[in-house]
Amino acid sequence: MHEFVLPLTPTSITIVTNDVVAPLYADRARSALSTFAATTTTEIPDGEQHKRLDTIEHITNALVRNRVDRGGIILALGGGVVGDIAGFAASIYMRGIRYVQVPTTLLAQVDSSVGGKTGVNHPGGKNLIGAFHQPSVVVSDTDTLRSLPPRQVSAGLAEVLKHGLVADAAYFETMAASLESMRAGDTAALANAVAGSCAIKAAIVARDEMESGERALLNLGHTFGHAIEGMTGYSAWLHGEAVGCGLVLAARLSEALGLLAESEVQKVMQAVARAGLPTRVEGLTAKDAVETMRGDKKSHAGEVRFIVLEGIGKAAQRTVPAHLVVHALHAGGFR
Amino acid sequence: MHEFVLPLTPTSITIVTNDVVAPLYADRARSALSTFAATTTTEIPDGEQHKRLDTIEHITNALVRNRVDRGGIILALGGGVVGDIAGFAASIYMRGIRYVQVPTTLLAQVDSSVGGKTGVNHPGGKNLIGAFHQPSVVVSDTDTLRSLPPRQVSAGLAEVLKHGLVADAAYFETMAASLESMRAGDTAALANAVAGSCAIKAAIVARDEMESGERALLNLGHTFGHAIEGMTGYSAWLHGEAVGCGLVLAARLSEALGLLAESEVQKVMQAVARAGLPTRVEGLTAKDAVETMRGDKKSHAGEVRFIVLEGIGKAAQRTVPAHLVVHALHAGGFR
Repeated sequence: MHEFVLPLTPTSITIVTNDVVAPLYADRARSALSTFAATTTTEIPDGEQHKRLDTIEHITNALVRNRVDRGGIILALGGGVVGDIAGFAASIYMRGIRYVQVPTTLLAQVDSSVGGKTGVNHPGGKNLIGAFHQPSVVVSDTDTLRSLPPRQVSAGLAEVLKHGLVADAAYFETMAASLESMRAGDTAALANAVAGSCAIKAAIVARDEMESGERALLNLGHTFGHAIEGMTGYSAWLHGEAVGCGLVLAARLSEALGLLAESEVQKVMQAVARAGLPTRVEGLTAKDAVETMRGDKKSHAGEVRFIVLEGIGKAAQRTVPAHLVVHALHAGGFR
Repeated sequence: MHEFVLPLTPTSITIVTNDVVAPLYADRARSALSTFAATTTTEIPDGEQHKRLDTIEHITNALVRNRVDRGGIILALGGGVVGDIAGFAASIYMRGIRYVQVPTTLLAQVDSSVGGKTGVNHPGGKNLIGAFHQPSVVVSDTDTLRSLPPRQVSAGLAEVLKHGLVADAAYFETMAASLESMRAGDTAALANAVAGSCAIKAAIVARDEMESGERALLNLGHTFGHAIEGMTGYSAWLHGEAVGCGLVLAARLSEALGLLAESEVQKVMQAVARAGLPTRVEGLTAKDAVETMRGDKKSHAGEVRFIVLEGIGKAAQRTVPAHLVVHALHAGGFR
């Protein structure tokens, strides 16, 4: 990995990783880099529930302790949560230092490591505190996916399906057809997904980095997904699981708006199910979901805008009447 | 003030102010604005010692509670500390919402409200956590300076003198000649300082927003000043007082480097003294100061770069041998 990091000529390297990834890769990363620059490792606890402002403080304390200056870089080694947290810490330390993403989960490799969205959650909503801060380099090694639990592979596939649904029907079909081989760990199939998803996402982000328009389409399934995560305390559901279920809800909502055929909704639902992801919720109420979504970043002047599908491979942004949202939620298992 | 704020068509206005400024101006500001958009007030405690990450959390909690969306704005009503904190909260809430600076101290009107540097302190150094985030509007009303304690007026004059020393010898002379009338509250003289200093600073920031070069010159006196503030717990010295003393130390260092004549050092020292600012420290050691400065943002690969004077009105950046720094510190009263 040093061949990607050294051209940045860092004065120091701070590896930020978690207690699950560290035993697997931290020592290897550190020894690959430490001959070139002072390299230290800072561990954070694993899990979305630690994506909080006090974890940022934990990292900045380490940066101060290690006397990291403006020429230092942070290397985010882990999944999407590590990347979001480490990237946000980099964005606010000394008003911004550089960072490198080394994603070790499928979800991070296909989605979150690209695009520069960083941040932490707030009890009032997901990613409410954060910054746009682009990584200097993203290094994805599909070999690291071999150590990934099946549930995490499925979570990553949610974002792969999302990219197809948002922007590329042919990509959706190809990916839907190789879900089983990707779940079985077929490296070539996984590498296709990483390359294909990054290409779709990077093209959209390049046209609209700050999400003033088109980039918002990448939030397909996320308003619903964030609500599910928020209502369950960011711990019971993986982000990708909530997004998978959110894709189905977004498809149902699109159908209720008359934009998507019932057969297309079934296609989305079957792909999500075959990816090993939940297609329904249990034990949550539509009322709480609506309340939670009103606090989401995508809400504006009290109205929640949704990303909907006008077909497979064609997303659009809409303000939706509340009763249709409730209808879609009920169809998805909300009480 | 509404004529400057309303063109932003905010969905809500959150006034962030402190417990000293609030009784003076918060109600007036709120009633001027509340007919146009939902307006709430969030108070933070007064003082540099509260410029901490948990104060940012206090503000973001209020934003979430008030359901502020991406169209909402923060209005920073108060001195430099309020502006730095409120601006940083705006920069990270939902990855950045707009904010308006309404500075009520001389220091904030002549310096900190312009340029988009926001942030909070860390026990390891001043402004170590922050972001570049430009205010949408800055509204300076010199009438608010009438309520300002004399010590705060003097603190603002430090930055006024700094602007002259960095970039404009004639401005330095004019300002030095009207220090007494500004301290006596002469509104015309103060308005000249606000206009002159903002013009100098805005021109430099426009050429180098992210401080990759020229903007660093505006840190004249600040490496020393930050060290003094850090060593005294950010409470005994006002920021402007530390900067005033830092200007004298920077002049002494410039003399030690052979860049500035003894008569020019005297000129700087006399102006700082006539502004009502300390020109020497007591009870601090040079050793601790050097250690503190190494953790400063301006340090790079263990070396501290200083802004020095090559004459009145002409600043430059230099890496300085440690023994000359210690020499300047000793001359300034450090043990």
